[in-house]
Amino acid sequence: MSEIFGHPWLGSFFGDAASAEIWSGERQMVHMLAFEAAWSRALGACGRVSPDVAERAAAAAESWTPDVAAIRDGVALDGVPVPALTHALREAAGSAEGGVHRGATSQDVMDSALALTLKDMSVLLGQRLRELDAALAGLADRFGDTGIMGRTRMQAAIPIRAGHRIAAWAQPFSRHRARLADLRPRVEIVQVGGVVGDRQQLEPDAETMARHVADALGLASGPCWHTARDGIAEYGGLLSMIAGSCGKIGTDICLMAQQGISEIALPGGGASSGMPHKRNPVDAELLITLSGYAATQLPALHHALRHEQERSGSAWALEWMVLPGLAQASARALAVATRLAESATPA
Amino acid sequence: MSEIFGHPWLGSFFGDAASAEIWSGERQMVHMLAFEAAWSRALGACGRVSPDVAERAAAAAESWTPDVAAIRDGVALDGVPVPALTHALREAAGSAEGGVHRGATSQDVMDSALALTLKDMSVLLGQRLRELDAALAGLADRFGDTGIMGRTRMQAAIPIRAGHRIAAWAQPFSRHRARLADLRPRVEIVQVGGVVGDRQQLEPDAETMARHVADALGLASGPCWHTARDGIAEYGGLLSMIAGSCGKIGTDICLMAQQGISEIALPGGGASSGMPHKRNPVDAELLITLSGYAATQLPALHHALRHEQERSGSAWALEWMVLPGLAQASARALAVATRLAESATPA
Amino acid sequence: MSEIFGHPWLGSFFGDAASAEIWSGERQMVHMLAFEAAWSRALGACGRVSPDVAERAAAAAESWTPDVAAIRDGVALDGVPVPALTHALREAAGSAEGGVHRGATSQDVMDSALALTLKDMSVLLGQRLRELDAALAGLADRFGDTGIMGRTRMQAAIPIRAGHRIAAWAQPFSRHRARLADLRPRVEIVQVGGVVGDRQQLEPDAETMARHVADALGLASGPCWHTARDGIAEYGGLLSMIAGSCGKIGTDICLMAQQGISEIALPGGGASSGMPHKRNPVDAELLITLSGYAATQLPALHHALRHEQERSGSAWALEWMVLPGLAQASARALAVATRLAESATPA
Amino acid sequence: MSEIFGHPWLGSFFGDAASAEIWSGERQMVHMLAFEAAWSRALGACGRVSPDVAERAAAAAESWTPDVAAIRDGVALDGVPVPALTHALREAAGSAEGGVHRGATSQDVMDSALALTLKDMSVLLGQRLRELDAALAGLADRFGDTGIMGRTRMQAAIPIRAGHRIAAWAQPFSRHRARLADLRPRVEIVQVGGVVGDRQQLEPDAETMARHVADALGLASGPCWHTARDGIAEYGGLLSMIAGSCGKIGTDICLMAQQGISEIALPGGGASSGMPHKRNPVDAELLITLSGYAATQLPALHHALRHEQERSGSAWALEWMVLPGLAQASARALAVATRLAESATPA
Repeated sequence: MSEIFGHPWLGSFFGDAASAEIWSGERQMVHMLAFEAAWSRALGACGRVSPDVAERAAAAAESWTPDVAAIRDGVALDGVPVPALTHALREAAGSAEGGVHRGATSQDVMDSALALTLKDMSVLLGQRLRELDAALAGLADRFGDTGIMGRTRMQAAIPIRAGHRIAAWAQPFSRHRARLADLRPRVEIVQVGGVVGDRQQLEPDAETMARHVADALGLASGPCWHTARDGIAEYGGLLSMIAGSCGKIGTDICLMAQQGISEIALPGGGASSGMPHKRNPVDAELLITLSGYAATQLPALHHALRHEQERSGSAWALEWMVLPGLAQASARALAVATRLAESATPA
Repeated sequence: MSEIFGHPWLGSFFGDAASAEIWSGERQMVHMLAFEAAWSRALGACGRVSPDVAERAAAAAESWTPDVAAIRDGVALDGVPVPALTHALREAAGSAEGGVHRGATSQDVMDSALALTLKDMSVLLGQRLRELDAALAGLADRFGDTGIMGRTRMQAAIPIRAGHRIAAWAQPFSRHRARLADLRPRVEIVQVGGVVGDRQQLEPDAETMARHVADALGLASGPCWHTARDGIAEYGGLLSMIAGSCGKIGTDICLMAQQGISEIALPGGGASSGMPHKRNPVDAELLITLSGYAATQLPALHHALRHEQERSGSAWALEWMVLPGLAQASARALAVATRLAESATPA
Repeated sequence: MSEIFGHPWLGSFFGDAASAEIWSGERQMVHMLAFEAAWSRALGACGRVSPDVAERAAAAAESWTPDVAAIRDGVALDGVPVPALTHALREAAGSAEGGVHRGATSQDVMDSALALTLKDMSVLLGQRLRELDAALAGLADRFGDTGIMGRTRMQAAIPIRAGHRIAAWAQPFSRHRARLADLRPRVEIVQVGGVVGDRQQLEPDAETMARHVADALGLASGPCWHTARDGIAEYGGLLSMIAGSCGKIGTDICLMAQQGISEIALPGGGASSGMPHKRNPVDAELLITLSGYAATQLPALHHALRHEQERSGSAWALEWMVLPGLAQASARALAVATRLAESATPA
Repeated sequence: MSEIFGHPWLGSFFGDAASAEIWSGERQMVHMLAFEAAWSRALGACGRVSPDVAERAAAAAESWTPDVAAIRDGVALDGVPVPALTHALREAAGSAEGGVHRGATSQDVMDSALALTLKDMSVLLGQRLRELDAALAGLADRFGDTGIMGRTRMQAAIPIRAGHRIAAWAQPFSRHRARLADLRPRVEIVQVGGVVGDRQQLEPDAETMARHVADALGLASGPCWHTARDGIAEYGGLLSMIAGSCGKIGTDICLMAQQGISEIALPGGGASSGMPHKRNPVDAELLITLSGYAATQLPALHHALRHEQERSGSAWALEWMVLPGLAQASARALAVATRLAESATPA
């Protein structure tokens, strides 16, 4: 069951293709090479290398066919892909090797690539949030006037309109959209720091370099953020809150689908191997699972805020271990919640 | 060592008096009584009870001397203080008992009180964030031009100005201030829902009731949020991020204070019982501990987003178990980081 | 709501008096003074101080009336109580001050005291586990032959005997008893290490010192364990597993008590402030809350395994912040589960 | 960076081939088919189907070439692979289809397969624990008499022998071996429960069925444990404790390798892309990361103890999401710690 999102068969239930693609090695490599090309051109624009060297170095990055085996071997030794990557790019650039990665460091490459990944992810989340919103509005249209029992503390209280519960499901997602808008400018920022983050080897051109690279990548320019990881923790918090708000929907639907209560009907799968007549509310259960998984992952990003000195290898890598899965779980939860909202009907 | 913040001797190191007061039972009771008084007056303003009954019920709430033993006995049975509280208030109101709590429910009282607590807490955080900002600016003034070794991945890299590291410490706190401003409107909202949150027993006056109560308490009016706890999770996330950013400062100072490296001097305590000559960087260590504690607590608030149906007794109470400690740890971290920044000098 | 276990009114529902006493500052002080007295006598027994000095130093520890304010002031400076404590004991011992704490260190005192606390806690857990076992057996007697619906994945499956479900509740507790027996010898060990844990300043008497102190305290003697905290993490794991197994009982009872399903009757409290006729399954909900709280606290003890070098101030203190609450939650869960099992009846 | 263990290039640093194989879908399928074959033969041995049908059904399971696409499609609908798997096996068994899976349920198949996976994992852990033990003994031989500075609370205390610190590293692993021995009998148990876990449809042969299947699979027979997941939580706790004890080694080595302290030399990789002369202690950092990751995952298994009624789809699947990664991280940590211990030398 290793690595559930890409598992040969469990992946069809837990995985989310669109976010898997956003966080894939292939896409990560595209972003890293885009950074390297932008960096080379920025070196040229600042006169730190000749225009010709800059362009040839950039072209080498843009046309390089990733030698995954070599990068993989490099990571086995170095813990990061950038030394092997830049070695290969310098070879590819030939006499223009002086225009490759000069004055940059691993974190500039990987964190700028991460900013691009988060930007892609935010676009996906924005779209999924809109889809869920529409699906919940549709559910309210079809189902909102149905009377159901209002239940507090697991006990019947007084009857309510189903629309009241659906509105309670939808309410946090409008705030999640606001949060996404609030935080995007805090993470879609190029990382340019040089070896210790103070840009000293890039002066007096550091600001210009950062702006050039940011413009080329479609990111904002800002101060070096490689040791101030609060944007990552905040992003993870939003991912987990989204999954959690989907988890409430899943919890409620599971409870509504119980025999003896039966307030909702769910079409589709959920076959049982031992009781062929039975239908399990598997999508609703999945929302509960994904929200539990997301809440579990989040504290790692907060522990990683203790990012020591000018670069923590250990805290940085901990982010790599949990952020992609957290993102995929959140995206999957939105898709499944939308599917549930589109298909559920009054029992 | 039970309950460290109020521990008879450990509390002097881990506890924070200002936030302990904000989260104390005494203050909570003041907020709950303020809600009940506001509610009674709102009933009167809407004509649901006579002006006289409303005022006498409100006065009973305002003049009631909390019978803590009775409330405590009630909680032992009911899990919440509001049934015992309203019973006592009805007795106190005598013939005006009809103006007490009519149409309200436990969560209206306790969550509105929580909104008031968070408002107080946000004021404290804002003040502490400004103090830390000033202390770090002062540290940069005294220490910024000192040369220290830039260190990446626990290894010496190249020399930097101390000011670069101090700027990296300060950077996330400016974003934390922005986050605090972003989220305050999402949590400083009165909770008015009635027994199942749909305000049906308050109609057609529900909106007016909510606005009256909100105005009296200094909160915003908004939709009933008792099952949509994302504001609480977001608040916890900010608390943990603040503690984490302080934890980075503590980590760096511990590393700077090592013999053989000695880049910082710390005045004050840290006595060892076995080695009287030794001085331990206890404040810096405390920042590490508090940030680890905060990151630990946070996921509970995300698990609690699965707040089932119209009220979850279990998810709601889980918030009570972790939020006050998380808040106190975060406030304490800010105070200790400020003290460290004010007192540290180059070695 | 700060510090829920000792909260003026919430404490009656969440707190557990017996475990609160075990983890109280007062009891901790008793253990620390017992260590200091045993240490002084061991110094005498090894001839490191004269028998008279040893006995007078021990007597000073045994008869000292804790000056809590002084200890509290010391902790505010030093982060640990032992420097202030030993200062006071040396004063109290007068000319026998040379027999106080000589060659010991803070962790020897506090971790040996912790071993005593865990021993007390294990006795309490053992007793509570037996009580729950008896209560579940009684419930099976009263209720086991009743037919209820077997439910899988939140759906009715086929009818079962209630006794099957009760047996599933009881099953893990027999393993928890085995685990408790397995782990007690791994934690009920005196901590004797001296300032850096290698006992160098105690040689050639170190082994004898450790054995003397262990015997006096009723602990086993063993290697210095002050940096190897796996016993603490394992203990925390058992506490959380116990709470989790109680949480399953609470979850099932909440689901059984729903209207429309109604398979269990619960006497007692659970009043609602807004719906006087309603009875909430507050004890069952509390089990869910406590298990969520316990699972939340546990990882802190695992993060604290990274206890750096010969003593980590930060990792050590993190244990203090979570272990007492975790213990109290687990003990409370056992008591509440027992009460539920004793009082529940078929609906 | 999705799914780091199998990532195209990061996997070479974070992944562990042996444990990845143990937790792979392929191996899981082997275990599930072994269960189905054993089940069919047990049906025959109990006379519930004819010997011929039993053997042909078992042979169908043993000779079936997994149709991964069909299983994957089934999981997308049902959330579990067993309905699609048994459908395929019945087709493969032709007229012997009555001997396939009769009276079993998804959890019997998957949890028995999990018990086999944990058995394989325990063998691997046992071997890795012995290797680390040997490597630490070797390190103590080469390095034990070297004087290093004893450090408490991040400060120099008094000199110690390196052997003291190495012994402190090794100490918990001897307890981890004892824990592994203690817990193996608690998890290497066949799961035989039938649709609701009470084996009613297997009576009067249930005990015999369970013993037959257990014998065929090399597991113990015992009571149905499908809703009592404490063995899984305990196993996860051991995995995380192992990773945590490795994390202490990593933390200490990072601190020992600092310039200005330099108490240890590490051969091998750790190249920096920006500072070619620099060598990062990447293996030691990895131990810190893996221990943080493991501690992060653990609470999910404790939350999953609230496994409602006779089967929780949501709690069960949460285990699948975190246990394989936790296992791989722990195994990887042991391998890396061993490599470090084998290669480190005094500086």
